[in-house]
Amino acid sequence: MSDIADVTRGRLVFGGDYNPEQWPREVWREDVELMRRAGVNLVTVGVFSWARLEPTPGARDFGWLDEVLDLLHAGGIAVDLATPTASPPPWLGHRHPETLPVDADGRRLLYGSRNQFCPSSPIYRRHALSLATDLAERYGGHPALAMWHVDNELCEVCHCDVSAAHFRHWLRSRYGDDLAALNEAWHTVFWSQRYSDWAEIMPPRRAPYLINPAQQLDFRRFSSAALLECFEVQRDVLRAATPDIPITTNFLGLDAPLDYRALAEREDVVSHDWYPDPTNPAAHEMSGLGFDLMRSLAGGPWFLMEGATSAVNWRRRNAAKAPGQLRAESLHAVARGADAVCFFQWRASRAGAEKYHSGMVPHAGPDSRIFREVCELGAELAELHEVVDAEVECEAALVLDWDSWWAVRLDAHPTADIDVLGRLRGFHAALTRLGVAVDVVAPDADLSAYRLVIAPSLYLVTDDAAANLTSFVARGGTLVLGYFSGIVDEHDHIRLGGYPAPFREALGLRIEEFDPLPEGETVRCSSTLLGGFEARDWLEELRPEGAEVVAEVAEGRRAGRPVVLRHEFGTGTAWYVATEPDPTALAALTRQVCTDAGVTGVLDGLPAGVTATRRGRVLFVINHGPDPASVELPACVDLLRGGRCAGRTELAGFGVLALVGE
Amino acid sequence: MSDIADVTRGRLVFGGDYNPEQWPREVWREDVELMRRAGVNLVTVGVFSWARLEPTPGARDFGWLDEVLDLLHAGGIAVDLATPTASPPPWLGHRHPETLPVDADGRRLLYGSRNQFCPSSPIYRRHALSLATDLAERYGGHPALAMWHVDNELCEVCHCDVSAAHFRHWLRSRYGDDLAALNEAWHTVFWSQRYSDWAEIMPPRRAPYLINPAQQLDFRRFSSAALLECFEVQRDVLRAATPDIPITTNFLGLDAPLDYRALAEREDVVSHDWYPDPTNPAAHEMSGLGFDLMRSLAGGPWFLMEGATSAVNWRRRNAAKAPGQLRAESLHAVARGADAVCFFQWRASRAGAEKYHSGMVPHAGPDSRIFREVCELGAELAELHEVVDAEVECEAALVLDWDSWWAVRLDAHPTADIDVLGRLRGFHAALTRLGVAVDVVAPDADLSAYRLVIAPSLYLVTDDAAANLTSFVARGGTLVLGYFSGIVDEHDHIRLGGYPAPFREALGLRIEEFDPLPEGETVRCSSTLLGGFEARDWLEELRPEGAEVVAEVAEGRRAGRPVVLRHEFGTGTAWYVATEPDPTALAALTRQVCTDAGVTGVLDGLPAGVTATRRGRVLFVINHGPDPASVELPACVDLLRGGRCAGRTELAGFGVLALVGE
Amino acid sequence: MSDIADVTRGRLVFGGDYNPEQWPREVWREDVELMRRAGVNLVTVGVFSWARLEPTPGARDFGWLDEVLDLLHAGGIAVDLATPTASPPPWLGHRHPETLPVDADGRRLLYGSRNQFCPSSPIYRRHALSLATDLAERYGGHPALAMWHVDNELCEVCHCDVSAAHFRHWLRSRYGDDLAALNEAWHTVFWSQRYSDWAEIMPPRRAPYLINPAQQLDFRRFSSAALLECFEVQRDVLRAATPDIPITTNFLGLDAPLDYRALAEREDVVSHDWYPDPTNPAAHEMSGLGFDLMRSLAGGPWFLMEGATSAVNWRRRNAAKAPGQLRAESLHAVARGADAVCFFQWRASRAGAEKYHSGMVPHAGPDSRIFREVCELGAELAELHEVVDAEVECEAALVLDWDSWWAVRLDAHPTADIDVLGRLRGFHAALTRLGVAVDVVAPDADLSAYRLVIAPSLYLVTDDAAANLTSFVARGGTLVLGYFSGIVDEHDHIRLGGYPAPFREALGLRIEEFDPLPEGETVRCSSTLLGGFEARDWLEELRPEGAEVVAEVAEGRRAGRPVVLRHEFGTGTAWYVATEPDPTALAALTRQVCTDAGVTGVLDGLPAGVTATRRGRVLFVINHGPDPASVELPACVDLLRGGRCAGRTELAGFGVLALVGE
Repeated sequence: MSDIADVTRGRLVFGGDYNPEQWPREVWREDVELMRRAGVNLVTVGVFSWARLEPTPGARDFGWLDEVLDLLHAGGIAVDLATPTASPPPWLGHRHPETLPVDADGRRLLYGSRNQFCPSSPIYRRHALSLATDLAERYGGHPALAMWHVDNELCEVCHCDVSAAHFRHWLRSRYGDDLAALNEAWHTVFWSQRYSDWAEIMPPRRAPYLINPAQQLDFRRFSSAALLECFEVQRDVLRAATPDIPITTNFLGLDAPLDYRALAEREDVVSHDWYPDPTNPAAHEMSGLGFDLMRSLAGGPWFLMEGATSAVNWRRRNAAKAPGQLRAESLHAVARGADAVCFFQWRASRAGAEKYHSGMVPHAGPDSRIFREVCELGAELAELHEVVDAEVECEAALVLDWDSWWAVRLDAHPTADIDVLGRLRGFHAALTRLGVAVDVVAPDADLSAYRLVIAPSLYLVTDDAAANLTSFVARGGTLVLGYFSGIVDEHDHIRLGGYPAPFREALGLRIEEFDPLPEGETVRCSSTLLGGFEARDWLEELRPEGAEVVAEVAEGRRAGRPVVLRHEFGTGTAWYVATEPDPTALAALTRQVCTDAGVTGVLDGLPAGVTATRRGRVLFVINHGPDPASVELPACVDLLRGGRCAGRTELAGFGVLALVGE
Repeated sequence: MSDIADVTRGRLVFGGDYNPEQWPREVWREDVELMRRAGVNLVTVGVFSWARLEPTPGARDFGWLDEVLDLLHAGGIAVDLATPTASPPPWLGHRHPETLPVDADGRRLLYGSRNQFCPSSPIYRRHALSLATDLAERYGGHPALAMWHVDNELCEVCHCDVSAAHFRHWLRSRYGDDLAALNEAWHTVFWSQRYSDWAEIMPPRRAPYLINPAQQLDFRRFSSAALLECFEVQRDVLRAATPDIPITTNFLGLDAPLDYRALAEREDVVSHDWYPDPTNPAAHEMSGLGFDLMRSLAGGPWFLMEGATSAVNWRRRNAAKAPGQLRAESLHAVARGADAVCFFQWRASRAGAEKYHSGMVPHAGPDSRIFREVCELGAELAELHEVVDAEVECEAALVLDWDSWWAVRLDAHPTADIDVLGRLRGFHAALTRLGVAVDVVAPDADLSAYRLVIAPSLYLVTDDAAANLTSFVARGGTLVLGYFSGIVDEHDHIRLGGYPAPFREALGLRIEEFDPLPEGETVRCSSTLLGGFEARDWLEELRPEGAEVVAEVAEGRRAGRPVVLRHEFGTGTAWYVATEPDPTALAALTRQVCTDAGVTGVLDGLPAGVTATRRGRVLFVINHGPDPASVELPACVDLLRGGRCAGRTELAGFGVLALVGE
Repeated sequence: MSDIADVTRGRLVFGGDYNPEQWPREVWREDVELMRRAGVNLVTVGVFSWARLEPTPGARDFGWLDEVLDLLHAGGIAVDLATPTASPPPWLGHRHPETLPVDADGRRLLYGSRNQFCPSSPIYRRHALSLATDLAERYGGHPALAMWHVDNELCEVCHCDVSAAHFRHWLRSRYGDDLAALNEAWHTVFWSQRYSDWAEIMPPRRAPYLINPAQQLDFRRFSSAALLECFEVQRDVLRAATPDIPITTNFLGLDAPLDYRALAEREDVVSHDWYPDPTNPAAHEMSGLGFDLMRSLAGGPWFLMEGATSAVNWRRRNAAKAPGQLRAESLHAVARGADAVCFFQWRASRAGAEKYHSGMVPHAGPDSRIFREVCELGAELAELHEVVDAEVECEAALVLDWDSWWAVRLDAHPTADIDVLGRLRGFHAALTRLGVAVDVVAPDADLSAYRLVIAPSLYLVTDDAAANLTSFVARGGTLVLGYFSGIVDEHDHIRLGGYPAPFREALGLRIEEFDPLPEGETVRCSSTLLGGFEARDWLEELRPEGAEVVAEVAEGRRAGRPVVLRHEFGTGTAWYVATEPDPTALAALTRQVCTDAGVTGVLDGLPAGVTATRRGRVLFVINHGPDPASVELPACVDLLRGGRCAGRTELAGFGVLALVGE
């Protein structure tokens, strides 16, 4: 079976989306020339070319693409060839309005943008597959072809009647054709929602008041499954045609209506689109979490498939990247396992909705700071070939589960302000400050390789997952569980008898009531181990049943309530965090649990904004901010700029070191 | 005719919504056992059971309900049996989409939530009535039956074509089948809106700009009338079947699209659902106003039909109630005339949209603080039997009128920030601080029992109501009128010639222009009687014509403008308040008008957050905050905890005293 | 050909909208009597009378209007007779729902408001034209008739299928029936949006993501063109019937979906509706800009067709005007070229959606401050007859272009916060402080009369316009260009090769990247010429290529970046402003460019809030604030109140002087 090494071939991949159809033919030769100058070795072609390839229904216009692929191949540049199915031509929506998606308010969305299809539509799927089949046949043997890129940023959700029928079909399968089982799982006895016939079941649409949460949760699962099907039907055709060519599809950032873990299992290469905000000084924290997630989903190296060389076009205000920022962000991805650094897009568009999205060649042309930085980055990546295929070793893991993430965001909860990614980022940033590398795993994953597992937010938990985490502790592991975890089963039914029922024994405690704090309000807490701190967002009425109280509320009418607890269970230790501590306390807590678990980092005493990650034998030290910072280093050599370092070393703003021992 | 005493039977009622269909049969016996332990004597059954009682169209499944009622009766617990018509089963909407409601944007709302019906739909009404009829027949003679509970929190508004036809039918009746009268009332000559045929008339729907205000006002009246009809058709069937069983339907808080006064006149028991925010330190102010309104609507005792034992699920953040807070809030209702304290719901749901709404038995089970507080409350209510049926005597009244409330909230007004309830609450809180009990009456009510009447916001006033208030003054009463009152007639037509035309003579003044202050801006005012104060929200260009200026603007280009005036009229006194004074000035003003009117309170010198209300011979003194407070008391005995009090007495946080003279 | 002088006839016009149909006949005689008392000489009649004139389809009821016109004529009051086509009667929408407009979400808007028509609807147009034709025939010879008023505040935009067909028709004409040309102009190759048939093209409607910007821009152009057609078909009928009667239609403030310049070219009298916020102390700045724009569009005098005597009804809070404020605002319009001061409306409505909009006769009646101020204003305007037809002479011009304004507001731009009018107002206010009069011109206008041209925001620029501005500089003019100007061509295609490509040579610089600042963030800048200042909103990576750097960023990682530059080009000077300077710096910059250009004002050293404008030989000095201010004046006489002034002179709050030399 094909895998990422068939694409990387011993080099770090460098390139971007290439849309030659947007430019006159005379530009194409200059493009290849400039790509070579920049060190580009792979481009993604054809992502939005459907209307160009099939200008009228059933027609095929492949000549221009033949020419582009030949030109690229002649220039030594490999091709990641896309099926252009994320944006059907206007003729499809015009002739078949039933392929156009409908939102939860019943509004049918029109073409003239992109993504305008219903993922359940058989008509859409037939047209998409037909074109993918013809592409596979025509280009499966082209020497430039290095990878298939199915669709783009799968994210379409539809509430139309076709989707409704598909949803019912999916539900019949999920519930073994047993309507009573669905009624039980959805608890339809509440508010008289019992279904007497499968035909009555609909996607969640605008309703007078709160919509059934289990219905919403199943619809999210279904929507993800429908997108997976869209991927799979194309993948199967491509794989059949070219068994040796790896297949990918790129993720839309971190928060899409898609179970990334399920998709990662179905593709050969995990690829990630990531656009950090250049003006956010903490952007690298979420980047780091996302990169580690991608590596974990891939089980090894992955592709940074899209990024911006400078500004994007979709924020309210779109700042340029500072000099050096592009390099720091790109090498951050490599440090955390990326074998590719690619951009959207090669040449900034001269018109259209994304013309203000930066490119590798900006509107100003190659005589520009941006293109010079692109060339320098290409050259440096070429020097880093030794990290290709190299692993990042982790003793710690964070838990992220899509079902739980979707469930905790349902409405009518104790608080509407549970930010799952934000809570993972909090612990991730604290671990990163300690130089501790971390994987991001499923709650029912094999945890035997880890000493420390942190589940900051695991609202929904299956019996198996709960047993998996509990036995991890019993067998000597250190588990940290965040509040509002272990509350419901896979149908969003409360696990009764005191929260969090499946973890109460391991944690040695019992919770009677949730008691969220008003927005902006904090309470003072005290702890011998962690020092005093301010807690926010959440409190509980909690009764220790064996657990040691590590921190408690220090004042007010809630004084004395436990907020952090530790419990020895089996040969391991289980921590429970019943509030949102301030960052300093979270850092102290993280340091403590690492000590408990015997987990140490690659470099200690890192200043704020500087990260250190070891990939293979290379230690990447990166300054994510514009101001200089100094770090204490062992004696080593920088692979990038060749100098030696030892002891206290100054890192320029956005500076990067790729160090190996002398 | 049946009334509330048929339900209370000499005891304070204690209980809640009981939804046994959400639980396996084995839980039912434990439920009755725990209810007995808690002192529960009445539960509301069947509110959302339609799909369970009629699983397919026309079918009846009553066996489980027979069993539940028998079990409850065997346990000595009476039943308030609901018609489950607030949430039709999915099969109704699926088979008859025209029963589903449509919003003003033309979006048809789907089932899978609750309330998904058009109140004007004959199909909905036929199905609802058929089930109500069968319930009346089957359970009319059941010994557990103590009250009927029609529907639930009537609040449905629909803009569909069926509603449009019903609206036209209602308008033909209102305007005596005279289209010219409607055109005149709606002033359709403005903006060329004249109707040439009844068939052209529609509910207000999304339009390019401002929609005709009289049309909007009549649509609010119609929507209320449609809900009243839904109530009446069921009530008539139930009353025919069981003339001795009282009938209620519960109000949805204070602000629903329904004229509560009109509904109260049509039911036997007024019942109120009330969910104060546990984190709002002033929540008891609105509670007190609402409780007094309910007592006034009922003309005596009323039912607190729903409340939460702790958190609700529908705010952004849902805090738990503090220990003791449940008791203080419950006894506050009793103090202001409630003969029942009930909760939604008996057992917190284990799934569904309201699973995070607290219950009398929480998820943690009976071994919990909440259930212990429930049991203690049940025991205390049993001790307070002497207040059952007892009245609260009032010399003062606040004026609230639904037509006026709806009209003042129409758009394109001098300010969009008129908060009718807020302005009533301001005066209510000021009266409460003086220990003065207050009714909440209609502007055309018989006012002869009162010395003081305050109409903080009475924008729309009929000729009759204006005459009623004027003659109240002429015959010796003290009237306080707030700004933007008496402006329009029942068709929202300006009463011309200087505002407020119908009250100008009694008030001794004439207003030329409204002059609202920008949001957040205040002006300094001066007054010998009230001291200096800050006014906000509203000013006027006003000319005294006989009235004495009590306060005026002290500075800026508006210096000298009168803002509070007093006028002797007949043998009474009329005050006019032309701005929003700060709370201290409002308190001083209220004290002054009480003095004028000879109204005194039951206890003076109450600290902030402590209320004192006499019901029958019992004086309830309640601390609504978490911190202790001290009050000066006459010598007396506490019915609740038995101790004696006299002189300065300490009240714990959320402490309650139910005092009778020694 | 008829023009404005046919209406003014040597007097300043004074009056307002007169809607006698809202009042009983007995009021009409009082109206004429009061109009005479107030000095009213023209009223606009019939704006919203369609349903009254045509109560059922095809019927005509003109009798009442005959009577009104006769009454007015007998009273010596001329009539501006409106075609009442802005608000069709309900019967039109009821019988022909396809005439009702549809928004971009597909929602059809209902009657019961106003403006409920699709401008492309042939049915609507046929009905509208039929009534206009009959009005022209009946009243074309009436002696009261002085002007035709077509429709009202044209602003309707529709996305329905009828509009879609019309849009396609318009596009076929625009692109010479060449679909490839449209595909090229809209750059449909991006995101696979290529149209294979004209029939596929639709108005922009709700879509999954960003909608094609060129499609949006063309739809704005089309929507404007559709409104122009609505105007033209009526105008042609009226002009044919009465060649000597001038025709106008009134603008809806400054920001309507209509190219005002194109409309101004098609009408005889430019008329403006303007409602400054009485509580905004800077409101006169936007008023002044708007008045100068109207004079420029008209190429001379214009009509202030609507204003409020005091409060409006559509803001969140609607304050009254202070005493004197009405006079100051009215004379401000006259100073900047208005030959008419009119109000909406004569008598404040007693009911309907605008009843809280003030009138010349308020609800309180003629015994009121408002009516007294109206009478005084009428008398003063009569004294100012000498300014009728007089010009305002300008050496400076601001550039405003509708295509560019529409284009810069498209989404997915470097910043969403470009406020074109706000940026014009900034420079306009700075010029006004210097007493400099200014026109507002098109970028391709003949600029030979000006010494100074400022284009604060000219995102889209045609080749012709770019050449026009460049040659203005080359031939000795002073041009100031604001940031994000000259970026795209008329199809919203980037002008490549370094921004702003068409102006780079004249400006002597090249921009590589835009770098907007986050909201609320400022950077310190330094400049020998302008002093230090704070800049906000926008920065750029810019390389001078010959230009002198006048100001640069003073600190932070962007220190040294140029933000203001000056370049000698040909015999003129081009300035470039690459950021948003604070008002003080903008004032210094404006003073400097005036000095450069040899432009001087009519009065120097004006205090804040006081303006000085010369019209003909009259110098209007106006205090726009409530506090007194003092100005240094030459020896002169006040035409209004007759006194003499010389030297330092005190102006009361809202005081106005109309000065001529002694």
